[in-house]
Amino acid sequence: MARPPSTPDLQALRHALSAVVGAPYVRDAVGPDHMADFLVLPGSTAEVAAVVTICHAQGVSIVPQGGHTGLVGGCQSHPGQIVLSLTRMAQIEAIYPDERVAVVQAGVALEILQNAALAYGLEPGIDLAARGTATIGGMVSTNAGGIMAHRYGVMRHRVLGMEAVLPDGTIYSDMTRVVKNTAGYDLKHLFVGAEGTLGIVTRVVLKLEPVPQSTATVMLGLPSAAAALEAISLALRSDVGHLRAAEGLWQPYIQLTARAQGWAEPSFPLDQPICLLLMLGGGNQADLTEAIEQIFGATLDRHPTATGIIAASQRQEADLWRLREDTDQLYRAHPGAPSYDVSVPLSEIGAYVDHVVNGLAGIDGGIAPFVFGHLADGNLHIVLNRNGPLTADLSRAVEEVLYTPLRAFGGSFSAEHGVGVKRMSYLGTATDPGKLRAMALVKQALDPDRLMNPGKVLP
Amino acid sequence: MARPPSTPDLQALRHALSAVVGAPYVRDAVGPDHMADFLVLPGSTAEVAAVVTICHAQGVSIVPQGGHTGLVGGCQSHPGQIVLSLTRMAQIEAIYPDERVAVVQAGVALEILQNAALAYGLEPGIDLAARGTATIGGMVSTNAGGIMAHRYGVMRHRVLGMEAVLPDGTIYSDMTRVVKNTAGYDLKHLFVGAEGTLGIVTRVVLKLEPVPQSTATVMLGLPSAAAALEAISLALRSDVGHLRAAEGLWQPYIQLTARAQGWAEPSFPLDQPICLLLMLGGGNQADLTEAIEQIFGATLDRHPTATGIIAASQRQEADLWRLREDTDQLYRAHPGAPSYDVSVPLSEIGAYVDHVVNGLAGIDGGIAPFVFGHLADGNLHIVLNRNGPLTADLSRAVEEVLYTPLRAFGGSFSAEHGVGVKRMSYLGTATDPGKLRAMALVKQALDPDRLMNPGKVLP
Repeated sequence: MARPPSTPDLQALRHALSAVVGAPYVRDAVGPDHMADFLVLPGSTAEVAAVVTICHAQGVSIVPQGGHTGLVGGCQSHPGQIVLSLTRMAQIEAIYPDERVAVVQAGVALEILQNAALAYGLEPGIDLAARGTATIGGMVSTNAGGIMAHRYGVMRHRVLGMEAVLPDGTIYSDMTRVVKNTAGYDLKHLFVGAEGTLGIVTRVVLKLEPVPQSTATVMLGLPSAAAALEAISLALRSDVGHLRAAEGLWQPYIQLTARAQGWAEPSFPLDQPICLLLMLGGGNQADLTEAIEQIFGATLDRHPTATGIIAASQRQEADLWRLREDTDQLYRAHPGAPSYDVSVPLSEIGAYVDHVVNGLAGIDGGIAPFVFGHLADGNLHIVLNRNGPLTADLSRAVEEVLYTPLRAFGGSFSAEHGVGVKRMSYLGTATDPGKLRAMALVKQALDPDRLMNPGKVLP
Repeated sequence: MARPPSTPDLQALRHALSAVVGAPYVRDAVGPDHMADFLVLPGSTAEVAAVVTICHAQGVSIVPQGGHTGLVGGCQSHPGQIVLSLTRMAQIEAIYPDERVAVVQAGVALEILQNAALAYGLEPGIDLAARGTATIGGMVSTNAGGIMAHRYGVMRHRVLGMEAVLPDGTIYSDMTRVVKNTAGYDLKHLFVGAEGTLGIVTRVVLKLEPVPQSTATVMLGLPSAAAALEAISLALRSDVGHLRAAEGLWQPYIQLTARAQGWAEPSFPLDQPICLLLMLGGGNQADLTEAIEQIFGATLDRHPTATGIIAASQRQEADLWRLREDTDQLYRAHPGAPSYDVSVPLSEIGAYVDHVVNGLAGIDGGIAPFVFGHLADGNLHIVLNRNGPLTADLSRAVEEVLYTPLRAFGGSFSAEHGVGVKRMSYLGTATDPGKLRAMALVKQALDPDRLMNPGKVLP
C-alpha cells in the first residue's frame, strides 16, 4: 500500500539534501511549470542514491528530469515533491571506437554525444529534433524513437548496459558493454520507457554505428501510401548503401509547409497525395546517387504519375529535409494544435490514414489532419487543423477515431512520446487487462510507496 | 512467501488437466531426463492459461519446454512437477511480407519459420545450429543469440509483440506489430531471457529481414585478434553489401577441426594464431567478391603475414563454414568436454584470450582451451581439452580464470546459453547485489509461490 502523503519538514529536508549533494545544488527555482519544493542536482550515482534514500525514508516523492523536452507532461511536479535533475551528470565517460560503444552519464545531451562520436566516424544511431537539449537519460526513460528506428531500433535497442537507482535508494548496476548477455533477468528494460516511475537511470552503455561518408536524397511525389512503401522496399534491398531515412508527408502537410518555406509550383508539384523523402547512406556519392536514380526510375515504371526531385547538392538535400523538420509551421497556422503520435503496421497505413481523414471530417464541422512521420517504421504524427486545446468531448471524439482501430491490428496509440500525464487515462482504459495487471505488480514490487514520479504512466 | 511444497493428488490433477487440454495431451512419458509426473501439451494460449490456473490453485510447479535444445539444464524437472510443452502450438499465424513481420506460436521451430519467410525473400534475422529443433518460444525465453547478433541483435531485439501466461494464469497480451511503442511498461522484456521463471511465452510477433541474394566469404589467417577486428571494421564500412557473419577460430580450434575434416597444408595454412571467417551479403555476386578481395588486400597491406582463401563457389563457401559449425569434432576428441560461453567487449578480446590461455595453462597440469565464436559481437565459446565433467575444485578454478575478469570490463559469463541450473550458483555469487535484489523483487511480484520453473536462474 502507498503511504499517506507526507508533510515533510522542508527545512530539515533541504538540510539533509544539501548535506549529500552540496548546498548550491539544492535550489528553489525550478521553472514556471514546476510546483515542486526543490530542484536537486546530484553529481554522481552515489549522490542520486543518497537523495533517493533520504526521500524514501521521509516519504517524499521525486520527479526525475532530463532535458525537459518531453511532450506528455512526464516532468510535471507538485508541492511536497522534489525535482531531481540529472543535468549535472553530463560526462561522456568513455568512447570505445573499435567496439562502437559509448559509456555516458544520464545528463549528456544527445547532440553532445553525437559530436563526440562523430570524431570517430560514429553516431548513436538515434536522432531527433530536440537533440540539443534532450538528454540520454531522458531518452532512455522515455524510449525515444526518431528517424532511424527502422534501421537501428529505438532507444531500448541502443542500450547495452545501465546503472540506475531503485526507489529505495539501492543502486542497480549492470554496465555491460556487450550485446549478448543472458546472465539473469535483463531488468534494464524495466527502466527503459518507464518515465522515471520505477527508478532513476544514471549511466548507460550505448551502441554506436558508423556514420556514412555520403548521403543521397530524393523526394518522391506519389499516388498512395502503398506506392511509398514500395519505394521504401526498393531502398531496403538496394545493393549500394543503406536506407537511412524514409519520411512520409501527406498532401495537407507538404502544401502548408512547402508554401510557408517559399517553394513554388510548378518547379515543385504539391498536388500528389503523399510525398516521400528517402535518404540513402553509404560510401561513394556517385554510387548512391545512381542507386537513388534507380529507385526513382523503378517507381516511375510502376507509377507513371510519380514526380521526384533528387538533391543535387548538400544544400538542396538540407532544403528537402527542412520540409520534414519544420513542423513549427503547423503550430504557427494553428496555435496549440492538438497532436497525436501513433504506430501503425506498415501494411495498414494506407487504410488507417483514409479512416482518420474520413473519421475526423465528420467531427464538429470537419477536422482535417496534417499527417507526417516515419514511414519505414509506421510511426505517424497527426496534428489537427484546430487551435488547441480541444474540449474534453471533442478530444474524446478525436481519440476514438484515431485510437480505436490501432489495437485490432497491433498498433500503438503512443509510438515515441510516452504516456506521462497526457495519455495516462487512455492507457488505463484501452490496455489489455493482463498487461495492466503485470504493470501494477511490477510498480508495487519496486515502488510500493509510489514515490517515483507518481501520477505518471500509472494512476 | 513460497507455499510449502504440495503433494498433489495425481489422479485428480491428471483428470483436471485432461479436461482442459484433452486426455491425449496429458502423457506420462516425458523422456529419460525428466522426472516430472506429467507432460502436458496445450494447443492454445487459452489452454496454457487453463493449465497454469489449475496448477496455481493446487500449488503444482511447472517446467515450460520448447525444443529442449538448451545447454544449461533449464528444462530439468522433478517429481511433483509437470512439464508444459509448447510443441503443439506450432502455427505460423501470419507473415506480412511488406512489413517484414511474422506472427508465430511459441512451438514453431526456427527452421520452419526460416523456410516460410524465405518464400518471401525474408529471414528471422537470427540463426543457430539447433535451428531444426529449437522453438521460437524457447529462443525468446532464453534470449537466443547466434551468428547475426552483431547486425540484427539477439532474440530480444527481434520481438515486437508478445502473448504470455503469467504464473497465476492471467493472459498477458501485447501483440504489437510495430517497433515504436511507448504505451506503458514494455513488460515483454521481462519474459525474454527469464527461462520460463516469470511466465510462459505463447505467441510472438517477430521482425524479419531481407535475405541477401548473394554472399561472399573469405577465411583470413591473421596474427592477432586485433587484426581480425580490423578486418571486421573494414567489412562493416564496406560500400557494397553488408557484414553477415564474422566468426573467429583460434589456432587450436582450427587445427583440430580442419585436420579432422581432411584439410591439408600447405594449401590451407593452419599455423596462424587466429582464423577469421568473414561473410558479406548483398545483391551482386561480382561486387561482393570484389569487396571481399578489397578487404583481403587491405588486410595484407597492414599484416604482410596474413593468409586467406576466398570461396570461389557456393560449395567452397559451405566447406569453409563447416569448419565453424562442426564443433562436434571437439567433443569427439574430448568427450563431455566442459564448455563456456562468455561475452567480451571487442577491445578486450585479445588480452582476455591471452589471460585465459595463460591462466588455464597453470591449472592441474595445464589445460589448453579451444576458443571460437562470434567475433563481431564479442561472444566467445571456450571448450576445454579435457573429458568432462570436471571435479568441483577444478571447475571452480577454471571459472575463476574465465569469469573473474569479465565484470570489470562489462562482459558476461553467460552470453547466449542462459543460466538454467548450470550457472545459477555463479550468478548468485558474482552478480551486482542491486541487480539480484531487483530480480528477487520481480520474481516475488509475479510468482510469489515460485511455481514457474523453480530452481532455475534464481534459487
